[in-house]
Amino acid sequence: MGAAVWKLTLSYDGSQFAGWQVQPGRRTVQGELGAALARVTGEHTLPQGSGRTDAGVHALAQVASVSLRSPVPAANLERALNHALPAAIRVLAAEHAPAGFHARHAAVAKTYEYRLFRARICPPWLAPYVAAYTFPLALESLRQATGWITGTHDFRSFQTHDPDAASRTEPGRAPHSTVRTVFSAGWETPEPELLLFRVRGSGFLHHMVRNLVGTLLLVGRGQLAPDQLPTILGARARSSAGPTAPASGLWLHSVEYRITGPDGDPVLR
Amino acid sequence: MGAAVWKLTLSYDGSQFAGWQVQPGRRTVQGELGAALARVTGEHTLPQGSGRTDAGVHALAQVASVSLRSPVPAANLERALNHALPAAIRVLAAEHAPAGFHARHAAVAKTYEYRLFRARICPPWLAPYVAAYTFPLALESLRQATGWITGTHDFRSFQTHDPDAASRTEPGRAPHSTVRTVFSAGWETPEPELLLFRVRGSGFLHHMVRNLVGTLLLVGRGQLAPDQLPTILGARARSSAGPTAPASGLWLHSVEYRITGPDGDPVLR
Repeated sequence: MGAAVWKLTLSYDGSQFAGWQVQPGRRTVQGELGAALARVTGEHTLPQGSGRTDAGVHALAQVASVSLRSPVPAANLERALNHALPAAIRVLAAEHAPAGFHARHAAVAKTYEYRLFRARICPPWLAPYVAAYTFPLALESLRQATGWITGTHDFRSFQTHDPDAASRTEPGRAPHSTVRTVFSAGWETPEPELLLFRVRGSGFLHHMVRNLVGTLLLVGRGQLAPDQLPTILGARARSSAGPTAPASGLWLHSVEYRITGPDGDPVLR
Repeated sequence: MGAAVWKLTLSYDGSQFAGWQVQPGRRTVQGELGAALARVTGEHTLPQGSGRTDAGVHALAQVASVSLRSPVPAANLERALNHALPAAIRVLAAEHAPAGFHARHAAVAKTYEYRLFRARICPPWLAPYVAAYTFPLALESLRQATGWITGTHDFRSFQTHDPDAASRTEPGRAPHSTVRTVFSAGWETPEPELLLFRVRGSGFLHHMVRNLVGTLLLVGRGQLAPDQLPTILGARARSSAGPTAPASGLWLHSVEYRITGPDGDPVLR
């Protein structure tokens, strides 16, 4: 029997981990998931995430791929993993994936959310999951500036130097390319005290969403004009953009894949 | 200038503390609040809570009293304390209280909530703030049994032995009395996945709410008949009641005081 490839969909509370990627002596999501897989199947294997999330960054639906030899039914794998994992990580779905499926290589789009809490006093049980931001914001300027980032651009100005950048190179893309496509970006207020930035794109550079938010908030506060965004993009220099917004507000919302269906047609999900 | 008495209303995330009460070498709410008061006023004083909450138990609105010599305006005290405190504790209000006000002695009623999460997979960011409980429950039996606990009863069967019980004796009450009055108790489903027990009473014994919930859930599961509650109360023995529900689901909702108004009339709030 050969190995079967699995697609695991995961939620996690990033405040309890030193990020996604396994690190010696640190509690990481990838490390905990690997340990749970070993406990459940006896196989020592490292699941591959759609991308790394930094310490403090949360996931509503991160996706990981892993190859397993154990012939375990999908429902059992989900249940057994949730039993073995800490409550800060949940497996939402464990599904069989086509041979060769890789959560990072096969991703065609990702959506992130950034949650700003706007009231004066942030409830303690929300604090780990938002960034508190009480300064008045001009939403119209914020929206104007946000319009400039949709489309295909060189986002180098919004990339924080990544000591481990080589591992992020995606196939079919020049090494170290900082060109990405933002399909959509916008601001919502799902609750009066919550301001939410949602961005969907082909992929994101290191700290790109947090650097975009940090820069857009400068516009919202009136410290930067909305039409300076093209200048900042054109500068292709991190120093031209604003600060990095805190990790606590960032949520990986979802990852999309083009998977070939039973009839050979591509299925996006 | 004499000292002024303050009433502080606090929210906290109990999952981040070893309970309310100060303990050497442990991170506690009372300890953090005392340290913040010392940083803000230079005075070393221990605030008195309306009662102790155990490790893992949360507060929507705990009340503490403290006497301060520093002539600090109320709005400034609130702001300065929130600046000095960790995000897991927030001061919702800092108000002047009548001389002699004591958060524990003056409390006339307390309300607790117990939050059960009913869906199969509990989101990681809710896990510290609920008790996951997926067994099917007969709500009608649960409600019938709950009817038996309202009123004035000896709740000794629902008291866990408290090594520090002496410090809990309330004035005007016989030492070690286990008689309390439950003004109201009931179950709500504010969201489809959330089942909430809310109980308001004159005061609560050690672990009383958690032991009530643990026992009532046995009724909900059909392991105990609703009309066994009077027998359990009458037994006046911890062993006759059910298990202690987990701390994570318990929230101190509010504390009520009868405070004399400016015209001498009692004001309940």
